[in-house]
Amino acid sequence: MLKIDGQRLWASLMEMAKVGGTPAGGCRRLALTKEDAAGRALFSQWCVAAGMTVSVDRIGNLFARRAGLDDDAPAVASGSHLDTQPEGGRFDGVYGVLAALEVVRTLNDANIRTRKPIEIVVWTNEEGARFTPAMLGSATFTGAIPLETALQTRDAANVTVADALSATGYDGARAVPGIAFDAYFEAHIEQGPVLEESGIPIGVVTGGQAIRWLDVRVRGQAAHAGTTPMKYRRDALFASADMASALEHLAKDFAPRGLVTIGEWHIRNASRNTIAADLTFTVDLRHPDDAQIASMHALLCERFEAIAAKRGLSVEISPHWISPSTPFDPACITAVAEAVQALGYPNQRIVSGAGHDAINLAKYCPTAMIFIPCVDGLSHNEAEDALPEDVSRGADVLLHAMLSRAGQVKH
Amino acid sequence: MLKIDGQRLWASLMEMAKVGGTPAGGCRRLALTKEDAAGRALFSQWCVAAGMTVSVDRIGNLFARRAGLDDDAPAVASGSHLDTQPEGGRFDGVYGVLAALEVVRTLNDANIRTRKPIEIVVWTNEEGARFTPAMLGSATFTGAIPLETALQTRDAANVTVADALSATGYDGARAVPGIAFDAYFEAHIEQGPVLEESGIPIGVVTGGQAIRWLDVRVRGQAAHAGTTPMKYRRDALFASADMASALEHLAKDFAPRGLVTIGEWHIRNASRNTIAADLTFTVDLRHPDDAQIASMHALLCERFEAIAAKRGLSVEISPHWISPSTPFDPACITAVAEAVQALGYPNQRIVSGAGHDAINLAKYCPTAMIFIPCVDGLSHNEAEDALPEDVSRGADVLLHAMLSRAGQVKH
Repeated sequence: MLKIDGQRLWASLMEMAKVGGTPAGGCRRLALTKEDAAGRALFSQWCVAAGMTVSVDRIGNLFARRAGLDDDAPAVASGSHLDTQPEGGRFDGVYGVLAALEVVRTLNDANIRTRKPIEIVVWTNEEGARFTPAMLGSATFTGAIPLETALQTRDAANVTVADALSATGYDGARAVPGIAFDAYFEAHIEQGPVLEESGIPIGVVTGGQAIRWLDVRVRGQAAHAGTTPMKYRRDALFASADMASALEHLAKDFAPRGLVTIGEWHIRNASRNTIAADLTFTVDLRHPDDAQIASMHALLCERFEAIAAKRGLSVEISPHWISPSTPFDPACITAVAEAVQALGYPNQRIVSGAGHDAINLAKYCPTAMIFIPCVDGLSHNEAEDALPEDVSRGADVLLHAMLSRAGQVKH
Repeated sequence: MLKIDGQRLWASLMEMAKVGGTPAGGCRRLALTKEDAAGRALFSQWCVAAGMTVSVDRIGNLFARRAGLDDDAPAVASGSHLDTQPEGGRFDGVYGVLAALEVVRTLNDANIRTRKPIEIVVWTNEEGARFTPAMLGSATFTGAIPLETALQTRDAANVTVADALSATGYDGARAVPGIAFDAYFEAHIEQGPVLEESGIPIGVVTGGQAIRWLDVRVRGQAAHAGTTPMKYRRDALFASADMASALEHLAKDFAPRGLVTIGEWHIRNASRNTIAADLTFTVDLRHPDDAQIASMHALLCERFEAIAAKRGLSVEISPHWISPSTPFDPACITAVAEAVQALGYPNQRIVSGAGHDAINLAKYCPTAMIFIPCVDGLSHNEAEDALPEDVSRGADVLLHAMLSRAGQVKH
């Protein structure tokens, strides 16, 4: 059975890692900076060498096309992103882009033509570390964000996406929203510990989980820490600590798939000897099932309000962002599942915990993802790592999933 | 029985409140600013009009002296401070200074001379809002802080105390540490709700409680909120919430005199969808009894460490400031208690929850304090308020406590 060239893929990953490489062994290629542009240029050069045609759309998404025998048919696409976190790793995003390139190189070596064309996509600003929101390029491609809004998005230095695109030469001509693909496959490191813990090299991703971001504000009364008896206090800190404990407890009723996180916590006018009066914290809820996450949300409100009422404080719980679960396309999932089975690699179904461009694409055209383990589940970290054999196996699966969809033409 | 002139005292308080008065009805006279200097000038003018002699020491403490028959005897002193919080009130500190002035005015009106001299003191930078530490003037007077250290203390704009003293003309000549007083009495609003709740106008203050300020640092592991199963997490936020709840619970075993507050709470590199890995928070412990606060501290360490160990995180608990309890002088307390009894005002013994210049003085010479209620227990607030009858009664008590100590000379 046809397999990709693992050494070549690994060598390309390491070559790309030098672009914006950090002393600690990670990468810093923030979206549409000169490092990102250098990474794109290297990738484009490799694509041209592999006989592909390169084009860019108006939000800077970069497409490399390998013609199909039926070249007017919608393309079978794969890709991910080359931009990184400020202290990012060598695999997040890059792996999906270079695995797709390795698929094309392998088809070239084996002299295989496909019925449908193949496109590799580098999506603009996936990380959201320079411009928010994250996944800006794929959201604009799929029409979820209007082009004008995307172009006027500003970074912390007040530079617009439009300016950054023209400064790097990635203000392309291809129209957005783009033409829907026949199918979109994205290979990615898991960015979590599940596959590694199970010793399983391939995750067949069935979709993205639902996410709810909430803002919680607890208001009590400021008072002097030394002169106010405990019984007269309306302490927003202790009330919020109670809510946090209630939230962690609530997650147990939704284990193991329900996830809860409090990532930010801020006391207004905080002072060591003043009772906290105005405290805000964020809640990140996740669950693969929309009904279950709605139930988590409702229970959270009920329990937080009960805590506030009991303590004579007020609590406001506001939704900041609500994202329903995103099931992937059954046919695309099957294509991945059959490829991995044919290759004989151990595998399991998995839900994507993080956001990916594929989550945007899934609302627009048939989509699926392939996960490989990452060492210690670590990502968004300069120490991010993956094993060469897992990197190879994931690209093998991508090769056969794409081939099955694109249609191999017999010689 | 001799009483002070309540209307005159109230009028002086309202006149002083105009100096640095804020639109919301509070005061802004930060230490050694031109507003503070204007307040001191007004006070000095009143003292001179009352026949007193004004002098200033090297840290800017301002003394107004009324001669005694035995003028070489150590003075019976009273005072407080005229500086305020950035959004301070009309009574905190000011009340103690002007109540002492009213005592002298009353003695003048009644043609009473005392055996020992009387001094009124305005202590420099009590609030600590411009220069830290708070109570700088009384600490320098009593030798707790060396003069050079105090003079080189800088505000947020990098101005030294020495420069601020010379800019306002309060770089006086009187030596520090100063000559110990025969006795020091300080009248102050309670800054808490205890007297008001009990409907009692006078608190006979028996001392300052012990204070321990701790810094707690909890370290777990950063990970992605969407991809990390709950069971693999080492979440510093939920661990800290547990510690906060344990602390609040611990306070119940030391009720009602044990006080616990978490005033500051900071997550390093906080992000909505990242599990907190490095969290610091402060703890403020108070108890009138040194053995009890030591036991609170020990139990806190035990419980926090148990929580960290159970969750596989680390916790460091570092003392930031340890201040033992400060008992006031039994004879001075008795002088206050006998004065209030003779006047027939309802009263109760009370421990000072906050820091005061009197806490510094108590380590240097016989000291006691008199508390009056403040409306809603509110202080450090532009809405800070006190009832005219309580203001009068507190000054009556001060008058008789000082007279008993200074010795009224019969005509």
